[in-house]
Amino acid sequence: MDSIITVITEEPQLKDPILIEGLPGVGNVGKLAAEHLLANIEAVKFADIYSKHFPPQVVLDEECVVNMVNNEVYYAKDVGGGKDLIILVGDYQGLTPEGQYELSNHVIQMCMGFNVKTVYTLGGYGVGKIVESPRVLGAVTSVDMKEGLEEHGVVFSSGEPGSGIVGASGLLLGLSKIYGIEAACLMGETSGYFVDPKGAEAVLRVLNSIIGLEMDMTELETKAEQVDQITSKIKDMETSQEPSREDLHYIG
Amino acid sequence: MDSIITVITEEPQLKDPILIEGLPGVGNVGKLAAEHLLANIEAVKFADIYSKHFPPQVVLDEECVVNMVNNEVYYAKDVGGGKDLIILVGDYQGLTPEGQYELSNHVIQMCMGFNVKTVYTLGGYGVGKIVESPRVLGAVTSVDMKEGLEEHGVVFSSGEPGSGIVGASGLLLGLSKIYGIEAACLMGETSGYFVDPKGAEAVLRVLNSIIGLEMDMTELETKAEQVDQITSKIKDMETSQEPSREDLHYIG
Amino acid sequence: MDSIITVITEEPQLKDPILIEGLPGVGNVGKLAAEHLLANIEAVKFADIYSKHFPPQVVLDEECVVNMVNNEVYYAKDVGGGKDLIILVGDYQGLTPEGQYELSNHVIQMCMGFNVKTVYTLGGYGVGKIVESPRVLGAVTSVDMKEGLEEHGVVFSSGEPGSGIVGASGLLLGLSKIYGIEAACLMGETSGYFVDPKGAEAVLRVLNSIIGLEMDMTELETKAEQVDQITSKIKDMETSQEPSREDLHYIG
Amino acid sequence: MDSIITVITEEPQLKDPILIEGLPGVGNVGKLAAEHLLANIEAVKFADIYSKHFPPQVVLDEECVVNMVNNEVYYAKDVGGGKDLIILVGDYQGLTPEGQYELSNHVIQMCMGFNVKTVYTLGGYGVGKIVESPRVLGAVTSVDMKEGLEEHGVVFSSGEPGSGIVGASGLLLGLSKIYGIEAACLMGETSGYFVDPKGAEAVLRVLNSIIGLEMDMTELETKAEQVDQITSKIKDMETSQEPSREDLHYIG
Repeated sequence: MDSIITVITEEPQLKDPILIEGLPGVGNVGKLAAEHLLANIEAVKFADIYSKHFPPQVVLDEECVVNMVNNEVYYAKDVGGGKDLIILVGDYQGLTPEGQYELSNHVIQMCMGFNVKTVYTLGGYGVGKIVESPRVLGAVTSVDMKEGLEEHGVVFSSGEPGSGIVGASGLLLGLSKIYGIEAACLMGETSGYFVDPKGAEAVLRVLNSIIGLEMDMTELETKAEQVDQITSKIKDMETSQEPSREDLHYIG
Repeated sequence: MDSIITVITEEPQLKDPILIEGLPGVGNVGKLAAEHLLANIEAVKFADIYSKHFPPQVVLDEECVVNMVNNEVYYAKDVGGGKDLIILVGDYQGLTPEGQYELSNHVIQMCMGFNVKTVYTLGGYGVGKIVESPRVLGAVTSVDMKEGLEEHGVVFSSGEPGSGIVGASGLLLGLSKIYGIEAACLMGETSGYFVDPKGAEAVLRVLNSIIGLEMDMTELETKAEQVDQITSKIKDMETSQEPSREDLHYIG
Repeated sequence: MDSIITVITEEPQLKDPILIEGLPGVGNVGKLAAEHLLANIEAVKFADIYSKHFPPQVVLDEECVVNMVNNEVYYAKDVGGGKDLIILVGDYQGLTPEGQYELSNHVIQMCMGFNVKTVYTLGGYGVGKIVESPRVLGAVTSVDMKEGLEEHGVVFSSGEPGSGIVGASGLLLGLSKIYGIEAACLMGETSGYFVDPKGAEAVLRVLNSIIGLEMDMTELETKAEQVDQITSKIKDMETSQEPSREDLHYIG
Repeated sequence: MDSIITVITEEPQLKDPILIEGLPGVGNVGKLAAEHLLANIEAVKFADIYSKHFPPQVVLDEECVVNMVNNEVYYAKDVGGGKDLIILVGDYQGLTPEGQYELSNHVIQMCMGFNVKTVYTLGGYGVGKIVESPRVLGAVTSVDMKEGLEEHGVVFSSGEPGSGIVGASGLLLGLSKIYGIEAACLMGETSGYFVDPKGAEAVLRVLNSIIGLEMDMTELETKAEQVDQITSKIKDMETSQEPSREDLHYIG
C-alpha cells in the first residue's frame, strides 16, 4: 500500500492558486480559521488524502456512513480580489515524525502541480495565559515577505515562537522554502489551554485582509464569547478558591 | 522481506463471495462470532497471512508444533441461500497504525481478486456497563444499504459509536468504500470489560439472517451463561461490598 | 541504506549444514550455550550481520577498536558425527517486531543458500522460580521430529511454553516451517531472574547428544556453581529476613 | 519522499579531505568543539541535510525566517598544515535507531564521493562527576592509529567507555571501518550533567594538534569559566546544605 493515497474527484483549472492550510494544532486555531473560511466562500472539495500515517480508523457521519480518516482539499475560484485558493483541512495530522514529513511533502508536490506560488499556514501560538487581544505572529520563508504582511497586521517578533513551529504549519513552510515557494505561517496568540475561536478570528481577519476577502465573523465571535464566559467563571473561582493552574487544562 | 506474506494452499473458485471478518477487538465479539460461524459450516482454510506487523513470535499447538502468528482465510461454498463466503480470522491485528492499514489493504486487494461484492466486518461496541439484550449496531459504506440491513435487525443510531471504528473492522469498510465494494460493520453491544459471547451471539444471529444461514447457537449460549453467572456474582459482591468498578476488568 | 548489511569474509563450502542459533533471551540460556559450543569446537567466523534494526552504536574491544553492533555467523566442518554447522551468535536481537522479522528472514534466506536442512534454536524457558535440575523443553516444526529428539532427552510438554516463543528462537522456527526446513527450539528451564549457566549447560548437553559432539563442560559448570552460591545466600536471607522476591532481579 | 534530502549549494573541489563531526551528544562536547572550530577557520557551507528522521519542525532565525531542522555540511580548504576539511554540524541527530543508521550511512556515502580518507568524530564521555582536567579518550577503527593519536594527547583506556559509543559519533566510526576509511572518535571527559565547554576545549586542542591548526580558545575558555563558577556555587551549597545530587541536572 502506498503511504499516501489521494482520491481526486475533480481536476480544477486554477490560476496560480494560494494554498491555505488549517489542520489541528495549538488551540485548534488554524483548523477553526480554515473551517470558517470554507463555510463562507464557495469552495468545492476535489481531493481526499488517505494515509497509513493517520490513525487506523473510520469516522461515522450522522447517517452511520463511514469515512476513512483523511485530510480534505478544497478549491475556490476568483474569491476576494480575484484569487484562486486551495484549502487543506482535516481532523488529523500524521501520527509520527516520518508521517508528518511524508504528508507535508505530498501536499507541496501537489501544490507544485497546481503552480501554487504562495502558501499560508494557519496556526496558534501558545502563550500559557488567557489572551484578551491576540496578536497574529508571522514566520516567513523570505525576509522580503515581511513588509507586505506587516501592512495587514502581522507581527514579526524576534524569538517568538522560540521553539519553532511543529507539524504541518511548520513543515509546509520549510518545504516551500526548499522548493522555491513563498510561504508564511500566521499564528494567532492563544492560551493553548482550550480550543480558541478568538485566536482563530484574529488569524482569519489577517488572512482575509491579505487575500482581499470580506466575510461575516459572527459565528467565530459567538463561539469566542462562549469560551470567554467559561474562562471568566473559572478565573473567578481561581480568585476565590485558588485552585491549581492545572484546572484550566480540563476546559477544551 | 515483504511486509505481508500470504501462503495460499488452494485457489478456490468462488462466485461473487461475501467477505466476513472476525478479528480480536472489543469484547472479542467479532472473533467469537466468526469462529462460531466457521465451526458450524463446511469451511476450508486456503490461505495463511503472515506479516512483520504481527508480534514476532510463534505459538505452539498441543503437540508442541509451532505456527508463526498469522491471520487465516477460509472459504465456504454454497452456504445458506447459496452464497459463497470468505472468512478472515486470527489471534492478532497489526501492531502499529501502519501495520493495520497494510493488512487491511492486503485483504481488500485479495477480495478484489475474488470479485468480492459485499463485506461484513464483525465487532463489539463497548458501552461500559453490563448489557442484558445487546443491540447490533450498524455502520455502512453507503446509505442505500441501511434499509436492507434494518430488516435483519441491525440498528442504525446516529452518533453511535461516536468515536468511530478502530482497526480492521473499520479500515476494511473505509477501504471498501474507496474501492467501490459494499461493506457493513455489525457491532454487538458489549460492556467491553470481558470476552463477551452474548454480544457475539447477537451479531451472529443478525449475520445468519442476512446470509440466510441457520445454525446451532448452543455453544455460544452456554458460554454466555457462564459469563452471566460470573458477572452476577460480582454484581452481588458490588452491592454488598461496593468494590471499585475496576474489578470487572479482571474477568475476561 | 539496506535494512541489513552482511559482510562476508569467506564463502565456506558446507555439506547440508545445521544452523544453530544462540542469541540473547530469557536467562541468556541460548547465548551462553552457543558461545560455549563455539569456544569448544574449531569454528571460523565468516560473516558479520549489521542492521539498522540493532541499537545505533559501536562497542569497543580492549584495544579501544570499535565494532558496530552486529550478529556473527561462524561455520565448523566435520564436527561430532561428521556434521557441518553454521552458528549464529550476537549481543542483540532486532529492536522492533519488524526488525525481528527482517533479521530472522535474512538468516533463513542465507541458510537456504547453504542448503541448510535442519535448524536448532537455543533458548530459555522462564518458570519464575529457581530450578534445581532444568528440563530441556522442545518445540518443533513437524510432529515427526519429536520421537527422535525425545531420545536425546528433549521433553515435549503440551502447553509449555504457553505464551509461545518470542524473538529469533521462535521466528526462525516459524519461517523454517514456511520454507520447508526442519527446525526445533531447545529451551532450558530457568528462573528467568538472572543469566543462567545451568540452563545453558542442560541445553548444550542435549544439543551435543543430538549432533554427536562431546565437549568439556567445566566452564559452564563453574559459572553455574557461582550463580548457585549467590542464589543460596539470597535464599538464606529470604528465609531469615523475608525480603521481597524482587531482590533476585538484581543478580544477573 | 526520500528519507534524506541533501540540498547542495556548491560542489567544492577538495583534496582527500578529513571529515570532522560535531553533533549534539553528552555535554554537547562535540557540537561545541565543532562550532568553535567553524567560527575560527574560513569555512563555507555547501550542503544542507534534511530528513524525515529529524523532528518535524522548522526553527526561526532572528528575522522570523524559517529553516527546516537540518544538519549542515561545511568545507574549509588548506587549513593548518594544508589540509582540506569537511565539517558536519547540526542541532539534531536522527530520532530513531533506524534514522541514526540512515543518516550516518548517508554521510559516509557522501564522504566516499569526496574521497575522504580520515574521519574524526567529536563527543563527550560522561563520567558522572565534575572533571577538573578532562582527558580526551580515543576510539579507533584500527589499532595502527593509536600511536599517532597518543602523540597528540589522546588517551586509550581499555574499558572506557564501557558502554560503547552511541549515535553518529559511534556509527560514523563503525561504518567507516566497514568501508575501509580510517576513523577515530575523540571524547572529552565531562560530568554529563550540563553543556560542557571545558570538555569541548580539551577535544578541540587535541584535534587542532592532529590537524596542525592553531586558534584562539578565549571564547570556549570564557564559557568554561562561567560554568565553573556556577558549579562551584552549587558545590558550596551542597557542602552546607547537602541537597540531592539531582540538582546539578538543572544547570545546563
